[in-house]
Amino acid sequence: MPRIYLAGPDVFRPDAIERGARLKWLCAEHGLEGLYPLDNRLPPGLTPAAAARWTLEANIALLRSADAVLANLEPFRGLEPDSGTVFEVGMAVALGKPVWACFAPAGDLRAQVPHGADGRDARGWLVEDFGLPRNLMLACSWTGYDATPEAALAGLARHLGV
Amino acid sequence: MPRIYLAGPDVFRPDAIERGARLKWLCAEHGLEGLYPLDNRLPPGLTPAAAARWTLEANIALLRSADAVLANLEPFRGLEPDSGTVFEVGMAVALGKPVWACFAPAGDLRAQVPHGADGRDARGWLVEDFGLPRNLMLACSWTGYDATPEAALAGLARHLGV
Repeated sequence: MPRIYLAGPDVFRPDAIERGARLKWLCAEHGLEGLYPLDNRLPPGLTPAAAARWTLEANIALLRSADAVLANLEPFRGLEPDSGTVFEVGMAVALGKPVWACFAPAGDLRAQVPHGADGRDARGWLVEDFGLPRNLMLACSWTGYDATPEAALAGLARHLGV
Repeated sequence: MPRIYLAGPDVFRPDAIERGARLKWLCAEHGLEGLYPLDNRLPPGLTPAAAARWTLEANIALLRSADAVLANLEPFRGLEPDSGTVFEVGMAVALGKPVWACFAPAGDLRAQVPHGADGRDARGWLVEDFGLPRNLMLACSWTGYDATPEAALAGLARHLGV
């Protein structure tokens, strides 16, 4: 059964544990095995620094063991997605693993980021104009995109031939 | 001469070209060769979708050719760093390339993200509490950090034995 790493800021949600259980249940419905970062059980008694490093290594090991990644790229504390998730997408692409993105549709970056007639934001920084809903490094490297995890897992299952 | 991929939202700045020239000059001062994404010259006449894909492929090729990465992880359109840069950091870590981060110090994530006594932000989402200045996937995988590109390139040169 293909193993799907469930990347997203979901681990920070108030209902993080229930959210993971639901995503894993959705995976199972599609013949996939969901791998949720919070499945890694932090050993007790670690310092904050050691706990953070342990979590990095456990998450990377889980990602390396996966066949594909579901990436929740919804905006997180601003207009960009969660950086932990984006880091994992970059790793997955480097490792040749397919990534399926999900987030609610909000148009392309020009539609999402307020900008002037010159295509620049309030600080004068250019807003990408490729008609893509995320930075091109994400939107040109993911294998597929859907608005919801339900649809994304269905797409990923089709892609993996399940 | 070690080749340093210069990752950052610098390519969106109003002075993106001059910024790249300055970063490459700083690299040369430390015996490093700077590789700036905007050095890739987009062929004329491409559709937006083809231009975006060409840029992804050119950036990935440049990153693969590099020995290390300087990553500008300053906040971008919110509290998170630029997702294109974070994607490249994830790729670099997967490829075993050292990453040196730079951004202005602003304390750890608890100092940066407004939160209540329960450690949760206004949406109720947990703010990491590891004493780290960025998401642990970044802060535990970078090789070094400095506040400025000048200091970061000096650190990277030392690390690479230049």
